[in-house]
Amino acid sequence: MKTKILLKEADIPTHWYNVMADMPNPPTPPLGPDGNPVGPEALSAIFPEELIKQEMSAERWIKIPDEVRDVLRLWRPSPLYRARRLEQALNTPAKIYYKNEAVSPAGSHKPNTAVAQAYYNKQAGIKRLTTETGAGQWGSSLALAGQMFGLEVEVYMVKISYEQKPYRRSMMHTWGASVYPSPTDRTNAGRQILEQHPNSQGSLGIAISEAVELAAGRDDTNYALGSVLNHVLLHQTVIGEEAKKQLELVGDYPDMIFAPCGGGSNFGGIAFPFFADKAAGQEVQLVAVEPTSCPSLTKGLYAYDFGDAIGLTPLLKMYTLGHNFVPPGIHAGGLRYHGDSALVSQLHHEGLVDALAVPQLETFEAGVLFARTEGIIPAPEATHAIAAVIREAKRCSERGEPKTLLFNLSGHGHFDMSSYDRFLAGELRDYDYPEEAIKESLADLPQVKFPQN
Amino acid sequence: MKTKILLKEADIPTHWYNVMADMPNPPTPPLGPDGNPVGPEALSAIFPEELIKQEMSAERWIKIPDEVRDVLRLWRPSPLYRARRLEQALNTPAKIYYKNEAVSPAGSHKPNTAVAQAYYNKQAGIKRLTTETGAGQWGSSLALAGQMFGLEVEVYMVKISYEQKPYRRSMMHTWGASVYPSPTDRTNAGRQILEQHPNSQGSLGIAISEAVELAAGRDDTNYALGSVLNHVLLHQTVIGEEAKKQLELVGDYPDMIFAPCGGGSNFGGIAFPFFADKAAGQEVQLVAVEPTSCPSLTKGLYAYDFGDAIGLTPLLKMYTLGHNFVPPGIHAGGLRYHGDSALVSQLHHEGLVDALAVPQLETFEAGVLFARTEGIIPAPEATHAIAAVIREAKRCSERGEPKTLLFNLSGHGHFDMSSYDRFLAGELRDYDYPEEAIKESLADLPQVKFPQN
Repeated sequence: MKTKILLKEADIPTHWYNVMADMPNPPTPPLGPDGNPVGPEALSAIFPEELIKQEMSAERWIKIPDEVRDVLRLWRPSPLYRARRLEQALNTPAKIYYKNEAVSPAGSHKPNTAVAQAYYNKQAGIKRLTTETGAGQWGSSLALAGQMFGLEVEVYMVKISYEQKPYRRSMMHTWGASVYPSPTDRTNAGRQILEQHPNSQGSLGIAISEAVELAAGRDDTNYALGSVLNHVLLHQTVIGEEAKKQLELVGDYPDMIFAPCGGGSNFGGIAFPFFADKAAGQEVQLVAVEPTSCPSLTKGLYAYDFGDAIGLTPLLKMYTLGHNFVPPGIHAGGLRYHGDSALVSQLHHEGLVDALAVPQLETFEAGVLFARTEGIIPAPEATHAIAAVIREAKRCSERGEPKTLLFNLSGHGHFDMSSYDRFLAGELRDYDYPEEAIKESLADLPQVKFPQN
Repeated sequence: MKTKILLKEADIPTHWYNVMADMPNPPTPPLGPDGNPVGPEALSAIFPEELIKQEMSAERWIKIPDEVRDVLRLWRPSPLYRARRLEQALNTPAKIYYKNEAVSPAGSHKPNTAVAQAYYNKQAGIKRLTTETGAGQWGSSLALAGQMFGLEVEVYMVKISYEQKPYRRSMMHTWGASVYPSPTDRTNAGRQILEQHPNSQGSLGIAISEAVELAAGRDDTNYALGSVLNHVLLHQTVIGEEAKKQLELVGDYPDMIFAPCGGGSNFGGIAFPFFADKAAGQEVQLVAVEPTSCPSLTKGLYAYDFGDAIGLTPLLKMYTLGHNFVPPGIHAGGLRYHGDSALVSQLHHEGLVDALAVPQLETFEAGVLFARTEGIIPAPEATHAIAAVIREAKRCSERGEPKTLLFNLSGHGHFDMSSYDRFLAGELRDYDYPEEAIKESLADLPQVKFPQN
């Protein structure tokens, strides 16, 4: 029995899989504040044409440019692991597989889309990309990708993270990006905040406003987003495509697939290529795993809401906790998002994607067990999938069911060791389900005239 | 042209290569203070019999136990990369290959020997391993390995590192090890230091004393060392064996091989399997790369000296700067060693291994160029090999020589980002060659009666 199932470089997918082609209903369009669908022209100030096309495409397969595959092969195909030691520790009849996306130079799945976005922007004659980042996973991935195509990258990093989590900032510098603690005095948005709150520690919402403002105001500059949007999920489908091929090599097919779900690109990346089979009648359960303290899919409302905290973006139909919702300070920063991808949300709404919420302590317990059996220390986001898999594997033990489980190990925890420290010292806690806060922020959803159809 | 050359799990070497079998002269024995060779029995208080046998063996091939290979396959075989993007950036006719040992869960080559040492100790009925660690590379590797075989691991970590570099400490905790800031009050050595210097920040020498004292004093406890010794270098030869096989797959053979050299396990690991060919007449140049500020091979004396700073170990014949030499505070902590492996030293003395010293700033420049072309951010130790390769590749450009160069990317820099930060901020500097300090410490070499022969 192999531990790692490897593919050749020639097996890097040649096409991305577009789930919109197989959804039973057409995807809900993004809306302007007037309730009318947002057209491509509204997006062209900050995105290149090719990405806007992908955002709206109904084509099942979209060709991956050779130049993109050429960068991806620095780490792709990523290995698929059989978690033999974890299975033994759990004494489960279940087979557990994981796709290891931690092998990218930035340490997570994020570069899969960063590289594609950098490429299309370069092709469109763009000189510079702006983006926001919290703890720095996305910012460092875009810094890496920009460097590979000779694009300047400006990252607006939430000030408190800039100060408290310096090492991902250092990664971005090493890859040649400029990193600014947001709010800055470089934008109207930033200056406005600083006038009112000179000591502002920043927020993801403010950082987005700064990055978008700069991209919208400069012809040679575009903006890049690391999750939520359709084209971002599209670029991540290389994960699931490879995993399918790797499981075929060992004659296996998953009964259930698990991935952490914040904005949805991690989940969509591994699950959508299997959704193609599901749409064709194959039995396979797709499970998006989220934190109980930020439970958009399991406790949110399926409604039109802003994608960002401030209300700059078009309205997206999604499971949301309300764009004003501020999640508790859990350590899986990448899952602290009030909403979800419109595609994942729609499929969940239609009963084709399942969702599960897991409390923080259980995720860290799972992470430690994984590290002590499989060796790799997982990112706090990834531990959500691991915790869900462990629950299922234990259920398999009780029932004697030899299910095949697959999950996305979306990143390593090398820059999250202080979170493990606090967990091992007994300093982390679970949060009560923030029912009141969610109720309040949901009462504040934007009022839109829905399009008639 | 491929980027990564991959092997199958079945290709993990089945035997370690023992360079002692092919050396033109027998290896110099370790000596006691009386000048007589140290026998196996003197080592048995802290090492298991099998490792002592390996330390002294003349057999060319030593079987790797299946249980060890079974753990190694969590990350082995490691990929061999063709550094296409680096070659392009240098516009060199040279072909550059690197073996990526950063893929282990601990992020360096160190687990290759940690796993073997943990296994043999477990087989010998040992319950607990002690060791010392500076910045934590070796301690975290042994923590991982101990966990895989159900051994307790106690790491004595230099106090200042324990406080200033908490994240490798957190890794060790995550893998279940106990970590103590040394000096501690758990040992005579530690208590003695604390009495004299209550605020001692510790040193590697003190930490070794503590770890050895505890191992020597308890029947169920042994000690593990991460470099220098023959058996440690032996376990690292899987690196070079795999690299040979991988180069064969693409029909290549290196003209020159480069590796960082502190205690020698990194260099011996990749270079020794090629030394077997060299001993049989093959032309191949083996280059050990060290910091100009700690230049044991290039500026040291070939003499018997203590392996540790305090003078507890047997005497080893090696290139040494004197065991009292304290190297400047360069950021490649793993290369701040006053001596060198006896095997590497002897081969250098006999003109079969070359050595090259590189100043700190050049190594960081090389590391940044590597990160910006190949993506991976290298550990400061590994950047020494990269800098040497870049020098050679430029020479190839000047002369139009299409040499094939191979180096060992011994680890990633995820826990060294503050060093990159300081480099990019212009805060690092080169150190003058510490001529006076070396002269002084060399004047203080132990006086031994050499054995007559």
